[in-house]
Amino acid sequence: MTIDAIRHQVSDLHQELVRYGLVVWTAGNVSARVPGEDLLVIKPSGVSYDELTPGDMIVCDLDGNVVEGEHAPSSDTAAHAYVYRHLPEVGGVVHTHSTYACAWAARGEAVPCVLTAMADEFGAEIPVGPFALIGDDSIGRGIVDTLKGHRSPAVLMQNHGVFTIGKDAKAAVKAAVMCEDVARTVHLSRQLGEPLPIAQADIDSLNFRYQNVYGQPQAR
Amino acid sequence: MTIDAIRHQVSDLHQELVRYGLVVWTAGNVSARVPGEDLLVIKPSGVSYDELTPGDMIVCDLDGNVVEGEHAPSSDTAAHAYVYRHLPEVGGVVHTHSTYACAWAARGEAVPCVLTAMADEFGAEIPVGPFALIGDDSIGRGIVDTLKGHRSPAVLMQNHGVFTIGKDAKAAVKAAVMCEDVARTVHLSRQLGEPLPIAQADIDSLNFRYQNVYGQPQAR
Amino acid sequence: MTIDAIRHQVSDLHQELVRYGLVVWTAGNVSARVPGEDLLVIKPSGVSYDELTPGDMIVCDLDGNVVEGEHAPSSDTAAHAYVYRHLPEVGGVVHTHSTYACAWAARGEAVPCVLTAMADEFGAEIPVGPFALIGDDSIGRGIVDTLKGHRSPAVLMQNHGVFTIGKDAKAAVKAAVMCEDVARTVHLSRQLGEPLPIAQADIDSLNFRYQNVYGQPQAR
Amino acid sequence: MTIDAIRHQVSDLHQELVRYGLVVWTAGNVSARVPGEDLLVIKPSGVSYDELTPGDMIVCDLDGNVVEGEHAPSSDTAAHAYVYRHLPEVGGVVHTHSTYACAWAARGEAVPCVLTAMADEFGAEIPVGPFALIGDDSIGRGIVDTLKGHRSPAVLMQNHGVFTIGKDAKAAVKAAVMCEDVARTVHLSRQLGEPLPIAQADIDSLNFRYQNVYGQPQAR
Repeated sequence: MTIDAIRHQVSDLHQELVRYGLVVWTAGNVSARVPGEDLLVIKPSGVSYDELTPGDMIVCDLDGNVVEGEHAPSSDTAAHAYVYRHLPEVGGVVHTHSTYACAWAARGEAVPCVLTAMADEFGAEIPVGPFALIGDDSIGRGIVDTLKGHRSPAVLMQNHGVFTIGKDAKAAVKAAVMCEDVARTVHLSRQLGEPLPIAQADIDSLNFRYQNVYGQPQAR
Repeated sequence: MTIDAIRHQVSDLHQELVRYGLVVWTAGNVSARVPGEDLLVIKPSGVSYDELTPGDMIVCDLDGNVVEGEHAPSSDTAAHAYVYRHLPEVGGVVHTHSTYACAWAARGEAVPCVLTAMADEFGAEIPVGPFALIGDDSIGRGIVDTLKGHRSPAVLMQNHGVFTIGKDAKAAVKAAVMCEDVARTVHLSRQLGEPLPIAQADIDSLNFRYQNVYGQPQAR
Repeated sequence: MTIDAIRHQVSDLHQELVRYGLVVWTAGNVSARVPGEDLLVIKPSGVSYDELTPGDMIVCDLDGNVVEGEHAPSSDTAAHAYVYRHLPEVGGVVHTHSTYACAWAARGEAVPCVLTAMADEFGAEIPVGPFALIGDDSIGRGIVDTLKGHRSPAVLMQNHGVFTIGKDAKAAVKAAVMCEDVARTVHLSRQLGEPLPIAQADIDSLNFRYQNVYGQPQAR
Repeated sequence: MTIDAIRHQVSDLHQELVRYGLVVWTAGNVSARVPGEDLLVIKPSGVSYDELTPGDMIVCDLDGNVVEGEHAPSSDTAAHAYVYRHLPEVGGVVHTHSTYACAWAARGEAVPCVLTAMADEFGAEIPVGPFALIGDDSIGRGIVDTLKGHRSPAVLMQNHGVFTIGKDAKAAVKAAVMCEDVARTVHLSRQLGEPLPIAQADIDSLNFRYQNVYGQPQAR
């Protein structure tokens, strides 16, 4: 994939965040690793989703320095870059403040795996990462420390929002969409009682099948 | 109806799932029996709703084997096929993970019949089927065992999602739309107290009138 | 207003029900009285909102008998007709199963007047009417008995749905939209505690000003 | 900015209220101060968002008297005008009855600052202003008394709705969008437990950075 193709893909994928209601105003961003190079492509800061074009996307190195682009990159670029530096199998990263996921994140509570679709996509609970301030590597480190060795491609950063990873940007967007979907369903289910657990062996079996038999193998 | 007309109908009906917010990403599927033949038409696996065309639809026999089509059929094809084999009056099947219905399904709890619109369409509570893993006939058997002899055209499969049936694919889609609608309304109602029951005789009378006087008679 | 103009208005107003999410599938209907004649114009039964045209609208007398139109009229025509026969100041009637209003209706609980916008439009709580079966004048009588002498242009029919009235069809649609809006807001407010009451004198003052100073005087 | 440009901007910004679901029917309004003049531009009363054009916007002096425009101005003009008279740094004001914010307002309860995005935009809880009737300066005074010396650009007027301020109309609209977004997320979070607090020093640090390092400095 050329950088130009990645600019188009990353730009288009932001529209999926809008379509699924995961973002308001200019919050939320998608990035992709440029295969074979120490570069990433990410949304510019503060540009509205209506006006976003492939040409607006910013190319950065994996320390988050701008290599190409007219605007400043997303203020979350440092977190994305940290993930690419420390998880070489990751090709895409997404960040949102999607509503139900943030409702769990504000309580610092993981979303339990009580839906077969959740076993398929996440293979486990969706875990919580630490509270971390923007401005240094704290957020990136919190994401990596939480997701390393975890089946889930999504982490709820406490009091903050969601980061998802994938083998490419599209897989990370899918994980962000599914994360909000299951966070909402499990939230609603728990409002009127306790969801029934799924046995660990069944979660394992569903996840193995989904990741290996049906879909293409994911980054994680 | 020719197979070509059914391809168009099944393709178009997927857009109703999108319009009513019953599906995210590529989850959810509609199928139709080909009248007079041991065939069904179903969505391909993993194709996005934006790109779905009548030509993408897959024709399978009633054991779920592909007869015609370029893609793999939906991973839920075995469940659809099982229903067609065991319920000859069924002409359409729909599967979704719609939010409120899944919230009930995750608790393994039936939706009580406390709305006249629910008495009309479902004639009873919306029942819960067993927890079942994908990969053999367990899901199909759970659907058929639960709906056989039940007025409801919808079943909540525990920890999983909704399956609906109808005399044709459109009726099954309508049942899926109404299932989420009443699951949501009854959920909300119960958040602030206990909904008032409707007397069984009134449920019977509403359902009889709706199924026989106003609408065309349904498959079930 | 000619019958032709009313056909257009009634047809167009159904799109407002769709836009505000008050209806699914073919549930919900709008009617208008033909000024100076013992006639009403109403939606046909079972036609989808996408396909509805002014020419599809049905003209009935005030006993609900079809005077002009190709389809059967809405199955709720008898209730609309009863309202026009007994409340001569009413020029429009709307029926929906909108979600939050039905959640209150299923518990048989009135929506308390705890928002200034609710004092403006409804001037009181939104009251509950009796449980009534379709098929005779029970529903119409329940609507009229509840709304006669009440400031509210909306009634929650127990376990069923909402009926609203207005000086014309547009005012009735506005009441249906506002009814769902305040039913939702007050529902949410009560989930986390008890909304603060508004003093009766303030409700009276807000309602008087809204109905007499700003807007055009309503039918009720 | 010319008055003509401001008419276009204010007209367009009303569409953002629609897009983010903050308004129904004709409730809700945006205004802007005309820089360097004692004038404001505001929505006309009772015109639907579909039909709103720049030419419909009303120009008023800062006592709320119409200077230019065919329609009557919004019935909330007195409150907007009061804010411009008493807070000279404010260039835009927005009023909505957005759902979740009103659910807090009906209980007279402030939204606690438990999300980093809330610390960024609001820098504190979103405070509650007094119950006040329309018709004199009570609402305007309640807004100004509550927001003066408060970091938050949004106030929940008890039993009523939201007013937001900003250095210009766009900033005030952004605050209205974010207010509903965080009111919803914190509402949902509290439904299933208690959100974790963010330390005051962290709120201060996030707010300082957001208002000074990244974005352009706001009016407040």
